[in-house]
Amino acid sequence: MLHFDSDYMAGAHPAILEKLAETNFEQTPGYGTDAHCERARELVRSVCECPEAEVFFLVGGTQTNATIIDALLHRTQGAISADTGHIATHEAGAIEAGGHKVLAIPHTLGKIDAEGVRSYCAWFFGDANHEHMVEPGVVYLSYPTEYGTIYTKDELGAIASVCREYHLPLFIDGARMGYGLAAEGADLTLPDIARLCDVFYIGGTKVGALFGEAVVFTKPDLANRFFTLMKQHGALLAKGRLLGIQFETLLENGLYLDIAHHAVNLAMKLKAAFIEKGYELAIDSPTNQQFVVLDDQTKARLSEHATFGFWEALDDGRTVVRFATSWDTREEAIDELIGLL
Amino acid sequence: MLHFDSDYMAGAHPAILEKLAETNFEQTPGYGTDAHCERARELVRSVCECPEAEVFFLVGGTQTNATIIDALLHRTQGAISADTGHIATHEAGAIEAGGHKVLAIPHTLGKIDAEGVRSYCAWFFGDANHEHMVEPGVVYLSYPTEYGTIYTKDELGAIASVCREYHLPLFIDGARMGYGLAAEGADLTLPDIARLCDVFYIGGTKVGALFGEAVVFTKPDLANRFFTLMKQHGALLAKGRLLGIQFETLLENGLYLDIAHHAVNLAMKLKAAFIEKGYELAIDSPTNQQFVVLDDQTKARLSEHATFGFWEALDDGRTVVRFATSWDTREEAIDELIGLL
Amino acid sequence: MLHFDSDYMAGAHPAILEKLAETNFEQTPGYGTDAHCERARELVRSVCECPEAEVFFLVGGTQTNATIIDALLHRTQGAISADTGHIATHEAGAIEAGGHKVLAIPHTLGKIDAEGVRSYCAWFFGDANHEHMVEPGVVYLSYPTEYGTIYTKDELGAIASVCREYHLPLFIDGARMGYGLAAEGADLTLPDIARLCDVFYIGGTKVGALFGEAVVFTKPDLANRFFTLMKQHGALLAKGRLLGIQFETLLENGLYLDIAHHAVNLAMKLKAAFIEKGYELAIDSPTNQQFVVLDDQTKARLSEHATFGFWEALDDGRTVVRFATSWDTREEAIDELIGLL
Amino acid sequence: MLHFDSDYMAGAHPAILEKLAETNFEQTPGYGTDAHCERARELVRSVCECPEAEVFFLVGGTQTNATIIDALLHRTQGAISADTGHIATHEAGAIEAGGHKVLAIPHTLGKIDAEGVRSYCAWFFGDANHEHMVEPGVVYLSYPTEYGTIYTKDELGAIASVCREYHLPLFIDGARMGYGLAAEGADLTLPDIARLCDVFYIGGTKVGALFGEAVVFTKPDLANRFFTLMKQHGALLAKGRLLGIQFETLLENGLYLDIAHHAVNLAMKLKAAFIEKGYELAIDSPTNQQFVVLDDQTKARLSEHATFGFWEALDDGRTVVRFATSWDTREEAIDELIGLL
Repeated sequence: MLHFDSDYMAGAHPAILEKLAETNFEQTPGYGTDAHCERARELVRSVCECPEAEVFFLVGGTQTNATIIDALLHRTQGAISADTGHIATHEAGAIEAGGHKVLAIPHTLGKIDAEGVRSYCAWFFGDANHEHMVEPGVVYLSYPTEYGTIYTKDELGAIASVCREYHLPLFIDGARMGYGLAAEGADLTLPDIARLCDVFYIGGTKVGALFGEAVVFTKPDLANRFFTLMKQHGALLAKGRLLGIQFETLLENGLYLDIAHHAVNLAMKLKAAFIEKGYELAIDSPTNQQFVVLDDQTKARLSEHATFGFWEALDDGRTVVRFATSWDTREEAIDELIGLL
Repeated sequence: MLHFDSDYMAGAHPAILEKLAETNFEQTPGYGTDAHCERARELVRSVCECPEAEVFFLVGGTQTNATIIDALLHRTQGAISADTGHIATHEAGAIEAGGHKVLAIPHTLGKIDAEGVRSYCAWFFGDANHEHMVEPGVVYLSYPTEYGTIYTKDELGAIASVCREYHLPLFIDGARMGYGLAAEGADLTLPDIARLCDVFYIGGTKVGALFGEAVVFTKPDLANRFFTLMKQHGALLAKGRLLGIQFETLLENGLYLDIAHHAVNLAMKLKAAFIEKGYELAIDSPTNQQFVVLDDQTKARLSEHATFGFWEALDDGRTVVRFATSWDTREEAIDELIGLL
Repeated sequence: MLHFDSDYMAGAHPAILEKLAETNFEQTPGYGTDAHCERARELVRSVCECPEAEVFFLVGGTQTNATIIDALLHRTQGAISADTGHIATHEAGAIEAGGHKVLAIPHTLGKIDAEGVRSYCAWFFGDANHEHMVEPGVVYLSYPTEYGTIYTKDELGAIASVCREYHLPLFIDGARMGYGLAAEGADLTLPDIARLCDVFYIGGTKVGALFGEAVVFTKPDLANRFFTLMKQHGALLAKGRLLGIQFETLLENGLYLDIAHHAVNLAMKLKAAFIEKGYELAIDSPTNQQFVVLDDQTKARLSEHATFGFWEALDDGRTVVRFATSWDTREEAIDELIGLL
Repeated sequence: MLHFDSDYMAGAHPAILEKLAETNFEQTPGYGTDAHCERARELVRSVCECPEAEVFFLVGGTQTNATIIDALLHRTQGAISADTGHIATHEAGAIEAGGHKVLAIPHTLGKIDAEGVRSYCAWFFGDANHEHMVEPGVVYLSYPTEYGTIYTKDELGAIASVCREYHLPLFIDGARMGYGLAAEGADLTLPDIARLCDVFYIGGTKVGALFGEAVVFTKPDLANRFFTLMKQHGALLAKGRLLGIQFETLLENGLYLDIAHHAVNLAMKLKAAFIEKGYELAIDSPTNQQFVVLDDQTKARLSEHATFGFWEALDDGRTVVRFATSWDTREEAIDELIGLL
């Protein structure tokens, strides 16, 4: 059976396991105060060309989103997000459990745009009763999005401009950051992202690590009390070095981007095959997630040989499914899948 | 330099790293729904002799405490705890962030007792205004305690009886469970604990794992909605198998208790040396944590060769410090330390 | 100047002030345990024909909504509401501050319908990943709605059926309940409402009282711990008798409905005049709130003589404004306003 | 039967009811934006000699405490309070429901002192692990305390000094403020209090109003977003003028202090009688609350003629009870009670 359900189905890139084994007997202080974390923080600052950044390592995406949003918002504020954003849909209400409303605005293939943010803010601050309402306090977006789509530098820059106009920090959920950077046609780099937004994270869990998200506060002031907030959210790993070691490994020789390019390249090969064989793409995604429309018969046939993710049932009875590639996807597996199409 | 700061200074027991490497390329579904987690759950039920238990794996102690307490309490209820309990002191207000008051009662060397719980409950329910107050909704205790002390079977049984009388679930924080089970003079076993309490966890982070806590609901009804609550708390690991694999390794051949016995045996050797050399023990601990009183001169001298934890400054100018052993403590290191005393 | 901004611009119906003066020197216990509250509770049960109801008195709408929703929901659940519902828009995130997501569904003139609730629930429970999402735990609607519209008995019955099918309690925000019951063409009575829903409240603040909302749990079990929850929400009035006295006065001789009919009748007279004089109604409202479209010139002209509420700016530059009548609206004022149209 | 259970057993001082009746037909905007509130705010600033103060009116004590503490604290911070403080005991966990820990320190007859605050802060900030703990973010005290005792100007000044040293705002719960200002031997005035603390409130509910607490932020910056926070807490009264009217009445001709002096004078007469007749005072209170120790026989005898509050059961079987006077206590009632002693 071939597996394409998601990008977190295997363990970690072997280089990470090797490094964990190599350092296993070192004795270090806990909670991210060790030398590996310090070095990983330096590497993050370096690849982002943001020497003043404050960097923290957390375990998973939902806890990272909830902790960052808590750090950025006053309790009377909420987070603007695409209505398809992860925080708006698949985090079991973690943001609301922290007391904050998700202010959902419409999306286009998972993306929000500058005009959408501006019109929400203009409407809000123009409403004479806005003190009775939840004020937008941060703009949240995912890069790449939950739909596998990406923002261009111009698009992100325009959103960042609106954010500055309204004094809203811009926060980018980078759970799949690598696949966005490595996407076909992407013109954004980590330094661009660091320059345009206030907080973002470089996702490890879905890009070759066992787990881990590297949070980058490009404006150090925003990181005030973040350590204690992590502790309060249960997001402070005792053996914090495990995060430092993983990000050291991912960032020191470009491994992070290599992994992402590998996965994206195979996804592009698969996408080309879908097109060539006449399949309908549900979304034109340049990243490691490919969304394709299958009729029942084809779905049944492919299911005998491969696993993939359910995405959406269409009204005509057909189904959108997702094929995800990852660091561990082998070219042979892609070829085999293509052979089945 | 010798290191005795804590029991989470090194990586994981080598058997765990081996198993992670061995399974690295397996592709499994996420969030704890894989076969490793299933097998680890079966092992937990088996070692606890509690076939009906619901078992979940979380990453760290604070998140585990906060999630369990949220699961057990109505929002008008609080958690009875020793005023030295971890939830009452060193979790940055995670319980309160979830909306619940910690109802602190006095401790004796980190322990509460049946009489303390009973008198709190009798006082509370006897107060005509108790509907204006936070009702006790769970009793929390640590085994072993933050002071390295343990409960006897009789003591725990008496607390459990009071809990039943007042219809309060009993929750045991087992972040260091192994060291309690392996403690000198301990008469409690996992099946005893499973029989006496309603929820507890078998701590991995401090007993040989990279991270991980195995939560055991001995009354399955109490686990209602726990999966979603984990997600909401950011406590649901995407690659959940990492937890399953670690607990499989720890539990399948008694490794968990072996690790604990190793650490406790070395701690007992160190303790005997402290006594023999005339040091004053701050606490008579039968577990892997040893607390000793040092004058400034001795503290300075030992600090040149070993690290250890600050515990408390005494009024007479002396200091209580903590020496912790772990899976990776070598007998040679203990001997070397003893030589320095 | 004539005032039609809202239905809470004056004090209380004189009968209430008289009763407050009359009882002023009585000495009673606090927090709603007095004889006036007890009698008011009996009156509520009687007018609702629901002898088993549990009745509580709170001060204002937002605190009532937040406290009830907290009482009904598990912390992993949210409240289905029209996206125009008061809890979704104008309560400054009070529901989210309590940890719960508002699950907004589309409205038609402020109303939800059975099909909308059913399709949300069917979608939710049909989604294989719903344990990662916020489960609907209550259906919230306003009667009359924020748009002045009302539900028919059939419509409410259909929604109640869907709620039962999905085991969701139905909660009706009755901040303006009186005006709904007295609305032109209304076929719902308090006994109907009590029979169809699980919790609702009879709003006093906007229907003649100084303040106060009478909460009715038609299923007593749902009221478990509600007293303490009120206290925790800061919603327990020390001199609780003030609420009892007001609802006694409103309910003992039909004053509540008399007030509502008075306001609705004047609103209908105004509405007829709008129509007759060729004004465009923005909403065809049968209640005390009338929504009409004004061009700038007319708006400016009327503003010289009357106050009214801003509702919405239309794309064509015209404005929707709201005229509200109340217990203290005089027929002469309506006639004067009509003369100005 | 004579009633001395509490100071909120009757309605309001007649001048308040008169003013409510007199203004009943005025039409005003809601939520505290009316002219009565504006005038009341001016009166508050004037009697406090604090022209820059931001003033808000809330309905009751618990909601006021919870909203203010939310406004002052970061979510990682808690409130230092006497362990007998109202927020620590009788508010059903309202502070914790807002996410904040109450950091209880020992009291002496309900009072904290500068040394207690200082030693807590010194201990906290001196602890190397304090980033894992809840940081003190405000000091809360009641004036007068729950035990009827008062602070001297020197005592309050000393606490204020420690607060400034540690950059902690000082917040005074003045639910019974009047009785403290009017207490026998009191040397604190409202201007003193305004000068020494950062936020406090002038309680109306227990000092002659129907309800209402006037919150004074002496440092306007601390009031940032307080209006929206009130709304979120359900603490924003729709007909806000009711609060404005009551505080206008209480403050314009010294009525507030007159009421307090009346009650305190009668309490002092009662206290003198207790002493003269050989009763044991449980607390030497200079305010309107008197605490006396009764044996069972005396308690039974007095209960036939008067109501009073249960306070505490002593180990010797005797009971501490509370007699409270109020604006409506008649001298004849006190004389009658004295005759029964």
